[in-house]
Amino acid sequence: MSQSKIILGAFVPGVLTGAAWRLPEAPKDSFRSFEHYRYIAEKLEAGRFHSLFFNDGVKVDLDPGLEKGPNSVRWDPLVLAPALATVTRHIGLIATASTTYNEPYNVARKYASLDHLSNGRAGWNLVTSLGGGENFNRSEHTLHGDRHERAEEFYDVVSGLWDSWDDDAFVQDKASGTWLDSDKLHLLEHQGKYFQVKGPLNVARPIQGHPVIAQAGSSEAGIRLGARVGELIFTAQQTVEESRDFYENIKGQAVAFGRSRDHLKVLPGISPVVGSTQAEAEAKYQRLQELLDPQSFLSRISKFASLDYDLAELPFDDVVPLPPENFSTDSHPSRQKLVYDLIRRERPTVRQLFDKLTAGGHRVLIGTPESIADDLQHWFEAGAADGFNVMFSGLHAGIDDFVDGVVPELQRRGLFQREYVGATLRENLGLPYRHNRHR
Amino acid sequence: MSQSKIILGAFVPGVLTGAAWRLPEAPKDSFRSFEHYRYIAEKLEAGRFHSLFFNDGVKVDLDPGLEKGPNSVRWDPLVLAPALATVTRHIGLIATASTTYNEPYNVARKYASLDHLSNGRAGWNLVTSLGGGENFNRSEHTLHGDRHERAEEFYDVVSGLWDSWDDDAFVQDKASGTWLDSDKLHLLEHQGKYFQVKGPLNVARPIQGHPVIAQAGSSEAGIRLGARVGELIFTAQQTVEESRDFYENIKGQAVAFGRSRDHLKVLPGISPVVGSTQAEAEAKYQRLQELLDPQSFLSRISKFASLDYDLAELPFDDVVPLPPENFSTDSHPSRQKLVYDLIRRERPTVRQLFDKLTAGGHRVLIGTPESIADDLQHWFEAGAADGFNVMFSGLHAGIDDFVDGVVPELQRRGLFQREYVGATLRENLGLPYRHNRHR
Repeated sequence: MSQSKIILGAFVPGVLTGAAWRLPEAPKDSFRSFEHYRYIAEKLEAGRFHSLFFNDGVKVDLDPGLEKGPNSVRWDPLVLAPALATVTRHIGLIATASTTYNEPYNVARKYASLDHLSNGRAGWNLVTSLGGGENFNRSEHTLHGDRHERAEEFYDVVSGLWDSWDDDAFVQDKASGTWLDSDKLHLLEHQGKYFQVKGPLNVARPIQGHPVIAQAGSSEAGIRLGARVGELIFTAQQTVEESRDFYENIKGQAVAFGRSRDHLKVLPGISPVVGSTQAEAEAKYQRLQELLDPQSFLSRISKFASLDYDLAELPFDDVVPLPPENFSTDSHPSRQKLVYDLIRRERPTVRQLFDKLTAGGHRVLIGTPESIADDLQHWFEAGAADGFNVMFSGLHAGIDDFVDGVVPELQRRGLFQREYVGATLRENLGLPYRHNRHR
Repeated sequence: MSQSKIILGAFVPGVLTGAAWRLPEAPKDSFRSFEHYRYIAEKLEAGRFHSLFFNDGVKVDLDPGLEKGPNSVRWDPLVLAPALATVTRHIGLIATASTTYNEPYNVARKYASLDHLSNGRAGWNLVTSLGGGENFNRSEHTLHGDRHERAEEFYDVVSGLWDSWDDDAFVQDKASGTWLDSDKLHLLEHQGKYFQVKGPLNVARPIQGHPVIAQAGSSEAGIRLGARVGELIFTAQQTVEESRDFYENIKGQAVAFGRSRDHLKVLPGISPVVGSTQAEAEAKYQRLQELLDPQSFLSRISKFASLDYDLAELPFDDVVPLPPENFSTDSHPSRQKLVYDLIRRERPTVRQLFDKLTAGGHRVLIGTPESIADDLQHWFEAGAADGFNVMFSGLHAGIDDFVDGVVPELQRRGLFQREYVGATLRENLGLPYRHNRHR
């Protein structure tokens, strides 16, 4: 079995303001039911997905969309991932944790534990967090620049702690009573700007050496961090040309950091709506769009992109005015850039912008298994993607449609794995084992 | 089915310096194997144990015992507990988390998530942490007093965040598109000495209202915290008289805080060694003791109790000298008190002290199912305990012996439940549902 060509990761729950919960067939309380997640994980594993990824935040968005959906109310992914590790065997489990609102010792320990528990299937989606300072003793959210500087050092501490022990440190020699060999222990003794951490970590070295690092920053600082330490790069790209530029840019930066371009995998997000005919797919999409509340959604977009007007107050068929020249400093640069670029490039009406943004700035692919496979193949072969981060709405039917329709089509074309090729997430992704720096 | 009389909690892995890993039949790598924990959880659930409790720490003890056993190297209990929630249905899962080295928002969220995931079986063992400051930007461990003051406020924030939402806040009304009712949201707006936390928590209210609070402090400040907020009180007591005094003291303090004495359950630790005859039990115990390394163990005790001499340097059959008059301020007061009291009360030889302390200051019960049941019955009926925290060595055989021997004997006497009586940990413990303070 050769290595899969296209990498498929799943993002659950998916779009920015899912209205899928309103469909008659949607189960109630799925946001607080393990069975819902178990079903999804088992289905995606049957579909040979490489990984399942959980995003996260550390606050409730008290914005106009609050009442409309569950997006900011969710379990901690570091509680959900261990539970899913016990009901799956192959799929990677990538949980988000913030470098702004955690301590590196705790993060290193949790992911090392998850990597052992899952036999080498753990990934850490490293985020600097959009907001949440008000829940962590901070009156204003830490400035963007500081967040990234802290994130860089945070990663260094975490990865250093993962190398606290040689792989063969725990000799467990019953005859002599020697449980571990302290010559194979390495103190970190980190003394930095943000952190002073002595070590060692009180968990053995992870199965994969280090859990896989996922990263999604698209600001300049975010791309630099991804190029230095990221292995799975999640990104929002609307055109194959833009995505190819992003792909070459971040891989080039990685090479400048001394890394191989093959050791980071670029996965643009897609939000698929699959039908057996194009018309059926369009109808499914319209059914979902009609369940959204445009006013609250548009107000929310206006707020997070720091527009100087409220989209909800404009007529639905007016062309959206050009945004301000400069980015706001207290917003999330990459999301803001995405909205601004879209408005400048396409000069959409409010309705068109609404349709584009309901998937959080990711491409919505509405079509048949064949047409969606065509699109993914085109992006992959054009050098715009190593794979895709598939953003499901959280509804079972949408996942079933993709796994039962698009996956077999990609497999028929020889573009996607029919079986898992490795034992660990790294092996399945074609990423190398991470050797101990003290070797 | 009436409520169980005696409560049984299990503590895994158990004693301070277990040498059980050296037994020929002990599986290798059990400290990093989920199957080991799964076996234990399933066995204890078959034995109708109320709860399974995981202790924790945030450092490796770089002391003379380091090489001798796995005690300070272990998975994060908040990763292990969610995994075990999926393979059990009734047993409570109590994970330790430190109030000194965490943020309350993160802790509130993880336990709320675990409570949902386990359908109401989560407990939080609230600890202030003995050590670990060197891994969290602190050159000296936070002083004992500060730790407790922070812990009190930490609990207030966490429990306040658990009340962020009314139980019926998530209406999920498909017709109107209203997912939640924001009138049923309560901001915390906490402004304290250690924490400023706005809220709300981004997880629905826990199944149990609040997860069960376990607490083990035995210092004056620790007992006060336990009396105010603790529901399961873990304690080390050597005599029935001492334990009754402790029991009355903490329940009296709880009543002074306006609580019912029945709403906190006192569980002294025991370390059982069960044989079909007394001689067989004694032989099992000796077999374990002989695998310990007395020198490293005694040096370790001398260090953590801040003795002004090293027990390891004294002849094994000499009487232990009296300890210093005053307690050291930079040690753990309750453990230190336990060692000092033992030396003063019993004037033991070094060997006798060693035998007493190998279970971490908890009583070692060596006997048959009948004699051990006699002992537990005596303590229970004397008002010295509501139940027991059974400290297993982590070895399967020791758990099997207890579950297959002592549990049926207690059941025959009508002292222990034959079936779980409730759906949640609270119900099984006879603790009330925690209503929302905003009700």
